[in-house]
Parts: sequence; structure tokens; C-alpha cells
Amino acid sequence: MAALFRGSRNLLKRWNKNVDLALVSSRSMASKTQVGFVGLGNMGNPMAKNLLKHGYPIIATDVFPESCKELQELGAQILDSPADVADKADRIITMLPSSPNVVDVYTGPNGILKKVKKGSLLIDSSTIDPSVSKEMAAAAEKMGAVFMDAPVSGGVGAASSGNLTFMVGGAEEEFTAAKELLSCMGANVVYCGQVGTGQSAKICNNMLLAIGMIGTAETMNLGIRLGLDPKLLAKILNMSSGRCWSSDTYNPVPGVMEGVPSGNNYQGGFGTTLMAKDLGLAQNTATNTKTPVPLGSLAHQIYRMMCARGYAGKDFSSVFQFLREEEGQ
Amino acid sequence: MAALFRGSRNLLKRWNKNVDLALVSSRSMASKTQVGFVGLGNMGNPMAKNLLKHGYPIIATDVFPESCKELQELGAQILDSPADVADKADRIITMLPSSPNVVDVYTGPNGILKKVKKGSLLIDSSTIDPSVSKEMAAAAEKMGAVFMDAPVSGGVGAASSGNLTFMVGGAEEEFTAAKELLSCMGANVVYCGQVGTGQSAKICNNMLLAIGMIGTAETMNLGIRLGLDPKLLAKILNMSSGRCWSSDTYNPVPGVMEGVPSGNNYQGGFGTTLMAKDLGLAQNTATNTKTPVPLGSLAHQIYRMMCARGYAGKDFSSVFQFLREEEGQ
Amino acid sequence: MAALFRGSRNLLKRWNKNVDLALVSSRSMASKTQVGFVGLGNMGNPMAKNLLKHGYPIIATDVFPESCKELQELGAQILDSPADVADKADRIITMLPSSPNVVDVYTGPNGILKKVKKGSLLIDSSTIDPSVSKEMAAAAEKMGAVFMDAPVSGGVGAASSGNLTFMVGGAEEEFTAAKELLSCMGANVVYCGQVGTGQSAKICNNMLLAIGMIGTAETMNLGIRLGLDPKLLAKILNMSSGRCWSSDTYNPVPGVMEGVPSGNNYQGGFGTTLMAKDLGLAQNTATNTKTPVPLGSLAHQIYRMMCARGYAGKDFSSVFQFLREEEGQ
Amino acid sequence: MAALFRGSRNLLKRWNKNVDLALVSSRSMASKTQVGFVGLGNMGNPMAKNLLKHGYPIIATDVFPESCKELQELGAQILDSPADVADKADRIITMLPSSPNVVDVYTGPNGILKKVKKGSLLIDSSTIDPSVSKEMAAAAEKMGAVFMDAPVSGGVGAASSGNLTFMVGGAEEEFTAAKELLSCMGANVVYCGQVGTGQSAKICNNMLLAIGMIGTAETMNLGIRLGLDPKLLAKILNMSSGRCWSSDTYNPVPGVMEGVPSGNNYQGGFGTTLMAKDLGLAQNTATNTKTPVPLGSLAHQIYRMMCARGYAGKDFSSVFQFLREEEGQ
Repeated sequence: MAALFRGSRNLLKRWNKNVDLALVSSRSMASKTQVGFVGLGNMGNPMAKNLLKHGYPIIATDVFPESCKELQELGAQILDSPADVADKADRIITMLPSSPNVVDVYTGPNGILKKVKKGSLLIDSSTIDPSVSKEMAAAAEKMGAVFMDAPVSGGVGAASSGNLTFMVGGAEEEFTAAKELLSCMGANVVYCGQVGTGQSAKICNNMLLAIGMIGTAETMNLGIRLGLDPKLLAKILNMSSGRCWSSDTYNPVPGVMEGVPSGNNYQGGFGTTLMAKDLGLAQNTATNTKTPVPLGSLAHQIYRMMCARGYAGKDFSSVFQFLREEEGQ
Repeated sequence: MAALFRGSRNLLKRWNKNVDLALVSSRSMASKTQVGFVGLGNMGNPMAKNLLKHGYPIIATDVFPESCKELQELGAQILDSPADVADKADRIITMLPSSPNVVDVYTGPNGILKKVKKGSLLIDSSTIDPSVSKEMAAAAEKMGAVFMDAPVSGGVGAASSGNLTFMVGGAEEEFTAAKELLSCMGANVVYCGQVGTGQSAKICNNMLLAIGMIGTAETMNLGIRLGLDPKLLAKILNMSSGRCWSSDTYNPVPGVMEGVPSGNNYQGGFGTTLMAKDLGLAQNTATNTKTPVPLGSLAHQIYRMMCARGYAGKDFSSVFQFLREEEGQ
Repeated sequence: MAALFRGSRNLLKRWNKNVDLALVSSRSMASKTQVGFVGLGNMGNPMAKNLLKHGYPIIATDVFPESCKELQELGAQILDSPADVADKADRIITMLPSSPNVVDVYTGPNGILKKVKKGSLLIDSSTIDPSVSKEMAAAAEKMGAVFMDAPVSGGVGAASSGNLTFMVGGAEEEFTAAKELLSCMGANVVYCGQVGTGQSAKICNNMLLAIGMIGTAETMNLGIRLGLDPKLLAKILNMSSGRCWSSDTYNPVPGVMEGVPSGNNYQGGFGTTLMAKDLGLAQNTATNTKTPVPLGSLAHQIYRMMCARGYAGKDFSSVFQFLREEEGQ
Repeated sequence: MAALFRGSRNLLKRWNKNVDLALVSSRSMASKTQVGFVGLGNMGNPMAKNLLKHGYPIIATDVFPESCKELQELGAQILDSPADVADKADRIITMLPSSPNVVDVYTGPNGILKKVKKGSLLIDSSTIDPSVSKEMAAAAEKMGAVFMDAPVSGGVGAASSGNLTFMVGGAEEEFTAAKELLSCMGANVVYCGQVGTGQSAKICNNMLLAIGMIGTAETMNLGIRLGLDPKLLAKILNMSSGRCWSSDTYNPVPGVMEGVPSGNNYQGGFGTTLMAKDLGLAQNTATNTKTPVPLGSLAHQIYRMMCARGYAGKDFSSVFQFLREEEGQ
């Protein structure tokens, strides 16, 4: 019922926009028809699997053919290019490493927009510059398609268990259609506003996360040097105004918490390189909007220095290790 | 019973230290005998009142005689100097603005240590450099007295309602005696370790608090400029890894939360000057222990610049206002 | 003779590139034929005048027609668009505020490249992102034209007196041709390397300049508060290892030097907004190349905060004023 | 003649201060009588030798007796303690590692002030907190002696060749007497103002030096990554407004200059640990005077991090190496 109703709402909207009616209704009313998926990396792979589990036939592609094998064995159809996917599916999800990949997958010579069907819904879950999301949305609109940005919070584990959080930007009347798919892959699907705001929300969160993590690391380190027991200090912070996610859920000091990367030599988790990348995006958007972000900017520099000092592959909480060494050791 | 037991534990400890036995037992067994209080400012005044309410006779002093009036009317005895207080009371609480005041009140010509009784318990609730706490403890020990540092978390409101948190450093065997008094003034009394660790915990918390607050302010500002609704952004951060006390309990953006200084033009709360002072203490301890605190250091500089730009008297969450202005406005 | 020789060198180069020979030689051998000029703002206007003085007929355009009046009265021919200029002149200089303007002037619907002649020499003296310079060079090359970046050091005064420094990036064999024109407007013309390196050199210099200026301001301020006479402190720094251009040539403390903006309430000079813009470019290039620039990044944030606090229009040495205020004043 | 004249000036001054006249004139008129020297480390040793070369008999001491051997062989008299030195010499120079050493050497149980003669001139060339210099001066004044701070600029090489720069704080009327000795060890002796201002000038210079060095390192690194030749970039900076001592005299990039530590794997020169120490002093004085020093503060943190990452013993220009590594290397 809801799908039908949404269908008719879309119908009215499309009418006003003079978009081909038949195509739109065909997309929106056939909710378990095939879904395209471009980008089957560490994140994309488990995300696509969760769509399969929910009964959606998958048509996928990736630049590395070997990435497609597992999904193919599970029944997904593998095609050669994003353009081919767009030729078959009118709902497509993309999950790519960075802005240039997104630009290429959408607007490149074999890109989605080369063969996109009118009325298609294109959802990009990559974390990229919001201004690129806006460009892709404009390019899609010219082809009669709808582009939404829907970056995720949560790592490979959350992708596998279907517990990602999606932050979604784009036309509000398309949100229900997007949510139908995204809720197969995530526990939370939050509408953030116009195109690009999903990215903006993601970038803002990760900037504050980085600040909180470095702040927690240097605070714990200072407390330890001043003679405080690290577990006790964490307990005090967590019942006080210094509390943050990095102190109470993901503490960077080995031995303070169980089940976090600090307890496992900073293996796994969210890599320093990825954090540096997200902070670069935050810095770019701040520079473009002339917004002062003094701590975010310094956090960016610190993660950049860490990448240069051999921490690129470690979890981002390894900033504690980066800062803690005693002089002369 | 508990007091008696504690008394006998102390008795044994004192015996080993060859301290006069009679004096110690006289202090610890007479738990509702008079308590000295030095420093009746915005914080000290309501703290002393809470001790009065709990039935402790108060003997107090302050450099500003007018600060003593209210307490005198409530029945406290007012004396001329800390030395005079120490002559009458063997349990004394001090609540002073900064390190030099503490040094003067304890070791100055009319200071507590001039007339302190053997076995006295001296509790300093000022926020000062932990190295000064250690100096005071050493000086007190020479006179046969016990010094503990017990700085507070919580402002004037918490002081009035008896809901402060005390972070206590000093000999563990004296903690019960200290807690007896401190629990009249606070909801939480946490033992942190040897002398100075109370200060260290306080300073660590406030450094991380400052980092979280500035980080929240710049993140919210960036998100708003990127087109996000501030309430929505706060909601997203608070369900994600960017969450911290400053985002979920004390949000610095006007209109996001009720009952916080950002909703009242940054009146009340915890002043920028006080935060700058605490960050100065954090910086000093970090410099002395050769601990890198890059974000804490920059936070210090930002609050210092704010003091110079007219924000000294505003709540420390006004850093949002400091950062948000549009160019040319 | 030199021009002829250069012409024949170019000839060989062009031959290899299969470019139309006749056009190239016609451009390079007729050195006092007309020169196009796009962008007659505060800088472009005196620069174009200096070309006129050196006997070059000028064909110019600007989005603001009134900017063209003065030059027109001096004999320049004013056209409607950059495309029209490119239709008449095969050597064109552009001087524009920022990257989007450059993109528009070169590649827009009425842009230079719409009507550029084969073999034309296009010199952009705007300060922009080096990656945009590279894009423009690639676009020009497709049209058979040569693009060079040649940003300037020096302000309106140096532009008027012909004392600018040009930092030039582009094909080395074109440098002599570029220098012929640029040396009419500047005292120094430095070849920096391939396209974009002129911008890179400019950006690097201004980043270090900003760091040196803020560093000088905070050092002078600290010294003054510690009781040092500012003139004496400047003298000591300038004979020691703290010496830099901002301390010895452009001191930010009023009264230390004559003839600099600090002596004139920070009027004139190089505006804080412009410095913030250049630091934004430095930040962007650093982020893109994953280069840590901790002080450059913080300098950017400080100038950004200054813009937000009312310093946008003052000389960038006003950072001394921004930092110096006493608490409570 | 000059010495006599100065003697009579001092005479008048002392008269006004009611200080014992005979003692003063005996000190000041016998200029080649013995000079005390406390602290014969890497710096103190060559400094004392230069005094010997100029004909001053030396009475010296050091906590490490082996440090005294070389000087003893050259004819110096070695005593057991600073107090013993003060008992024999009325002009004493001290050169010690840090504030606590200075406090101990002056006010400790075997300190100078235990046996100092009235009218003695005590010159401390250590680099310490100016507030400690003031304390020492006050303590010396109580004993009828004069204390001046005279920290040096220049390393072991300058100490050996007698080319140090002395920045002198203290009573102006004593400056000539101090200069008589200091000019045997240094090429420049600059009077800075009241006690402590020598330290202040030294600290200010080194803070700006650190800022300039890190700024130069990150600027050069950025330029290199943007494709500029390092020698060319240095040349451009040095003829432009980015110029500073670190770019034109002590460039941190290997291969740009001869005869600097960057050309010798950052051996020798001014160690990162020492720079971190001086920046700690700058931070302390800034915190105490509530002066914002954002770049100085970040420079401090960066040198602190370098100490923790294995750069403690390298020249401070190794910050270029610290920042330059490519990701993944």
C-alpha cells in the first residue's frame, strides 16, 4: 500500500516535471525487480549481499573482475560496465573509494549516465565531496534520472550485519524509495536535506570524531603521565563533561576496554588513511565555505603526519600510540 | 561504628608514623565537631552552607570580610586568618581561585600551617597545578598534618544543591575521613590516587571538555554552512561516533537545546576565563611532563584569544559565536 | 636577433608538434604588435598601462565596462568579450580574481579559447589553484595555443611602478616570449618549471609569509608583555635566527618601523581576505598532495577567524592587533 | 680609564643604596682579578677557556668533577661547590642546563648565596624561565649582591670561537661591568632591560626561530610535491616575502645549502630536545602572561612529538624529515 501511495505521489511530481510517466511508475511499483550495484569492494560486497538476502535480484559490476566472483556465485548477474548496469536496472547503488571514481562511474565513457533510463533512482553511498554529489545530481537530472547521496556510518562489520547508518541527501519525495533499499543494508536511514547534505552530515560527524579521538588520546596520555590509572581516568571522564564516543565506546588506550582496536594492536577498525581522507574532505568544504575549523584542521594535519610516519594502515585510535612514546625510546 | 573503625585504622597507621596518637583519635572520632572553611566565594559559600546543613559547626575566614556575612548569620564563627582557623579546627576545607592563593593560605605568614594541629585533615578543593598540591602536602606532612586535593566538577548550581563531583588525591587511608565531609557537598566523591591526582583528573577532564566544545562548535558551524539544519545535525551526531557531552548535553548552538547557556546569550555557565585558566594548568602539566597535547594546546590558545576578543565573561560554549560570524559582517 | 633565434627554436619545436608553422612565426616575430589584456581591476589596470608605455598596442576587455575607461582614453581598444580579444591578438594576458573567473574567461561561452588563434601565447597572472592552471593549459593545447601561469608578487604599488615579480610556469621554450611582455610590468621574471609551478611558487611563498607574520606578531606581543621594548626586541630578532621578512621589513607592531601598514592603522597593504584566499589555495594543494602543513593550516584558520572578526579589509599584519588585546578590555 | 670611571659611577649609585662602599669598589676596579665559573658543560667549558685566554684567573666548579679536568690543566682553580667559589670570587658566571639547576646553584645548601660577598656580580648565562631569574635576583639583592641574566645565542662553535651573542637583563648601571666579562666570550652583548628581559629576548627569538623553521620545512616540502626544484624554490622564497633565517641561512632541505646540518643527516647543530625545552619556556611565559601564541604553541607540540618519535638528538631542522615521508613508506 505504501509503495502504491508513494508511486502515485511520485506520479504527480513527475507529471509536473514533464517526465515520462510510464517509466517512472514502472520503476517505483515493481519494488523487488532488479537492483544495480557498482563497486564491490570491502564495503560494497556485503552491502550487495544484504540486498540479495532481501530478495532483490542484483546486477553488478566492478573494475576488478575478481571482486565480482563471490556475488556471482550467490546469483548476481555481472556486467562489464556501469553503462551496461544502467541499461538493465532502474535503481542503482554505487559504493566507490573517492570523488574521481564517482565522477568516472557516472559521467565517464562507460558511465551510468551513458545508458541511464529516464526515471531511474541512482544512490551513491561513497564518501565524497558534497560539491561532486551536486554535480552528479545535476548531470543525472539532465538525463531525467534522480541522484541521491547516501554515505554510510559504520565499517565492514556493520555492512555485513546490515547495521549501517545511511545519511541521505536529495529530493525529499524520493526518500521513501531510497529507504526501501537502504533499510535492507542499514539499521538507520536518516534524511538530511537536499543533495549533498548526506555527505555533509557524514563529513561533519567524522571531523568531530577525529577531534574527539585525538583529544581523548592526548588527555589519557597526559593523565597517565600525571600518575592516574587509565581505567580510572576513563571512568571519571565518562561520568563527567569530558565524555565522548572515543572515551566511552572506542577508548584508544590498550587495556581500558575490550573488543576495540586498541586492545588488538590497532588492527582492524577504521584506518588512519581513511580518516585522513575524510578530514581532507572536511577541510575542502570548510575552505570553500570560508568556515574556520581550527581543531578539525589540526586533526587533519595530525592524521596526515601519522600516514607519513607508518600509521596509514592502523586503526585511527592509534593516535594514542603516535603521541605516547617517551622521549629517547 | 564506621567512624570508630576508621579511627582505629588511622590509629594504627599513625602509630607506625610515630604521630601523636591522642590528637589523631580526637580528630577522627568527633565527626560532628567543627570544620574550618577558608574561601567563601561563589563556590565556597554554598559549599560551607551545605556543611552547616549537615550539622557541622563552621569556623570560616575569607580575605573579603563581606563574603563572610551570610555564613555568619547562619551561625558560622568568623575568624581573622587561616592560621586562626587552624588553631581551632582540625579538619579544614579550602576553596580558592588559584595556585598563589593556595600557597599563601597554607604557607603564608598567617597561613594554616602556622598553627595547624598535629593530625589535622586539610582538604583543598581549589583547581590548581598538581605540583603545588604536592608541595602543600609535603609542607603539611612536616607539620604532622594530612593534605588532600579534592577539586570539584560542577558549577555554582551544583555547589548549592550539593551535587558537585569531587576528585580526590591523597593517602588512601584518609579517603574515608575526607569523604565524610565531601559527601555533604557533592553527589560523587571519587578517589583518584596519590596527592595531586585529583587535580590531574580535573585538569584532564576539562582539557577534553574544551576540545569537545570547540570541536562541536566548529562542526555545527560547518554543517550549517553546508546547508544542514542544526537540530538535525545535532541529532545525527548524537546517534553517531561524533557524539560528546558538548553535542548532546550542552550544545553551543542557540536553539538546539533548552536550558543551556547557548539559549541564553551565553550568560551563566562556565566562563571562558575559567576555561582558559584550566587549560593553562593543563598546558603547564603537559609541558612539565613533556607530553604532546596538540589539540589541548590549540584549545588553550583559542580560549586565550577569546578572552582577548571580549568573550572573557561569557560561557565557554560561546566559542560557537566566536567562530560563526560571516565575513564582512 | 634574439627574437629571431627564439623564433627558429620555436619553429623546430612546432614542427615536431605538427602545429601550423606560419601562425607561430607570425606571432613571435612581430613583437610590438597588439597584446590582449583581460581583467582591468586594481592590478590589471596599472599592468596594462605599463604595456602601453612600452609601446604595445592594447586590446582589452573587462566584465565591468567602467574599468576600461581609463585605458581606453590612453589609446587601448576595448572589446566586448575575451573571445573577441582572442580573435584579434595572439598574445593575451589575463589578471583575474580567482579560479572560477579564470575558467570562465578561458573556457566559457565567450571565452578566449572560443576564438583563439593557433600558436597564441596566453599568460595568466591571476593567483589560482595550480591544478586549474594545468587544466587551462591542456584546454589551450587542444586549440593549438600555449598557456603559461605567471602569478605576481607585489601589490598595486609594484604594479604601477613596474616592479612586480612574476613566477612563471609553462613550456621552457616559450619563457623568452613571455618574459618580453612580463618584463615591461615587473622587475623580476623567474622561470619556475612546467605549467602550474608559477602558482605553486607563489602559494608556497605566501604560506611561509603568513606563518612568518603571525609568528612575528605573537612573538612581539609576548616580548612586550614580558617587559621588552618593541623596537629593541625587533632589533634583537633581526640580528638573530628569529629574523624574517615580517620582522625586518614589514613589522606588524605600530611604531617599530616607518612606512608600513602597522604605522597607518593597518590601512593599505595586502588585505587579510586575500591572504586567507591564498592560504586556502595552499591548503587545497597540500590536501590534494597529502602534504602535512601544520603551521600553514593553522595560519589559514587564524586568517579565516580574523575575516570573521572584522579584519577582512585590514592589512594582514593586523594579526598583531587581533592577538594583542588585553583580557577585559 | 673606563674601568675607573665606571667604578666611580658605581660608587655614587652604591652610596645612594647605602651599600658597603669599600667592597664594591674593590670588585669593580680590579678587573683582571679572579672570576668564578659554575657549570663546565659543552657550553661552559669553552666559555671559561675564553675568559682564561683574556687573562682572567678562573675559579670553577661543576657537579661532574671530570668536567673540570681540562680547565684545571689550563690553570683554573677547581673548588668543591658554588658556595666555595663565591667565597673567593666576587664576579661569577653560571652556565647550567635548566631552572632547577640554577635554583640549586644559587639558593641550595652549598649555593652561591650561602657565601656570596657583598657587592658581587652574578651573571647567569643559562636559558631558564625569566620568573626564576627574577627570583634569583631578589634573593641575591637580599645578600647585597647583583644578579643579571645573560643567556646566549649561538652553539658550541660560537662558544669556542668567542662569537656568542649575550642578551643581558638587569640593572643598567651594572651592564658595563657585565659586558667587560661577556665580551671576552661573545661578539655581541646586548642590553635588554630589567632582570629577566635577557631570558625573555632569548625565548622570543627561539620561538620565532622554531616557527620559521617548521614553516620553511612544510613550505619546501609542499613546493617539492608540487613539482618545484628545492634550490629554485629556496631562491624564490629568499628574494620574496617568505624569506627567513631558516630559509636563507639554515635551510632544512638536504642539498639546498652547504655547511648546515641538513647536509649532514641533521647531525650537530641545535638539538630538537633543546628546542623543545625553549619552546616549553616560551609556552610557560605565554601562559603566565595570558598571551595567545597559537603558532608558538603548535611549534612546541610538534617538537615535543618529534622528541617522542626518535628525533630528540637530531638538529631541529630535521622537522623537514619528520614531515616529508611519503604515505606508505
